[in-house]
Amino acid sequence: MEPAKLRSDRVVLDTSLFVNPDIRHDFGNTPTEAIEGFLVLAGQIPELEFYMPTSIFAELMNFVEKEKIPGRLLRILRQKSPRKHELTCPAFLLYELIEDIRERVNKGMRVAEKAVRSVGKSEEKEVIQSMRKNFREALREGIIDSKEDVDLILLAKELDALLVTADQGAIKWAEKMGVRWLMPEKFKDYLLSFI
Amino acid sequence: MEPAKLRSDRVVLDTSLFVNPDIRHDFGNTPTEAIEGFLVLAGQIPELEFYMPTSIFAELMNFVEKEKIPGRLLRILRQKSPRKHELTCPAFLLYELIEDIRERVNKGMRVAEKAVRSVGKSEEKEVIQSMRKNFREALREGIIDSKEDVDLILLAKELDALLVTADQGAIKWAEKMGVRWLMPEKFKDYLLSFI
Repeated sequence: MEPAKLRSDRVVLDTSLFVNPDIRHDFGNTPTEAIEGFLVLAGQIPELEFYMPTSIFAELMNFVEKEKIPGRLLRILRQKSPRKHELTCPAFLLYELIEDIRERVNKGMRVAEKAVRSVGKSEEKEVIQSMRKNFREALREGIIDSKEDVDLILLAKELDALLVTADQGAIKWAEKMGVRWLMPEKFKDYLLSFI
Repeated sequence: MEPAKLRSDRVVLDTSLFVNPDIRHDFGNTPTEAIEGFLVLAGQIPELEFYMPTSIFAELMNFVEKEKIPGRLLRILRQKSPRKHELTCPAFLLYELIEDIRERVNKGMRVAEKAVRSVGKSEEKEVIQSMRKNFREALREGIIDSKEDVDLILLAKELDALLVTADQGAIKWAEKMGVRWLMPEKFKDYLLSFI
């Protein structure tokens, strides 16, 4: 008796897999090497289709030596935007997003007030630099805050795919929308299990 | 021949109609009188069903003399939350909301930077007060920024109703979602046209 054929599946990839130094070492020492390392494994797994939103792919290209990227990347890692004008999302998510934003706006205001109060204790330039950093962190951490994040979630939803990302905001929304997700640290083991 | 019977319609009301002094004078001098004035007209129009989201109704109750509110308000102005777990919204709205937020976060940051730079020129307490005001304006103006706003839009969508609001954020989203809307200034004329 032949072994049961594995059902094919789809996977949506974030850039962190290739860009984040803590994660990409599974596949290579530089983003360009990590892509090559991924392609070597992915090319041996006909059961899996790999996708990346066009916007995320464009981000990834900023990190690589483009002339060293093999042509088969374009075949194996399919670039596709979600059907954003056809997809819908449950309306209660609007409430959660808006509640999230309100909390963050309040946090941002407290950061700004602290900065105003610390003028005089340190140099104005330093106060502003540190405020910018704290402000961004307060407003953006753990929230879906970019079109690219929405692309990831919606594409994974549209394709009923496994989303591979380390972005906490994207993971939170994957959970809300019933999208499967995997930590990038586990992705190499996941791939090897098919080979 | 009898005149053609008017098709019945539904109307969703925001508080501004009764609370905003520039608008409510069409119906009465105080919020409580404005409600009475509205009921006198609304009670003569069997073709229209009036609704208000529960959350908005609770807000309205903060502005009125509760003991003077007639019981028929509860019959004529129906309180109802939208079916937020059944309704969906087009996914491209998520992109617009997130883009909107990013712009506002950047604006908020500029407000905060300006405040830090102005310390020393005026009193710290004044700097913070004026920053709070500018910050709120920068982040909230013209955006859907509360659960109550979402309630208004979704209830109007669910009921295929006419939304009567002066809130610019709600109007902007009504436009995006194909929800009919009317400026509160025109609402009395609208009602009188039925009588």
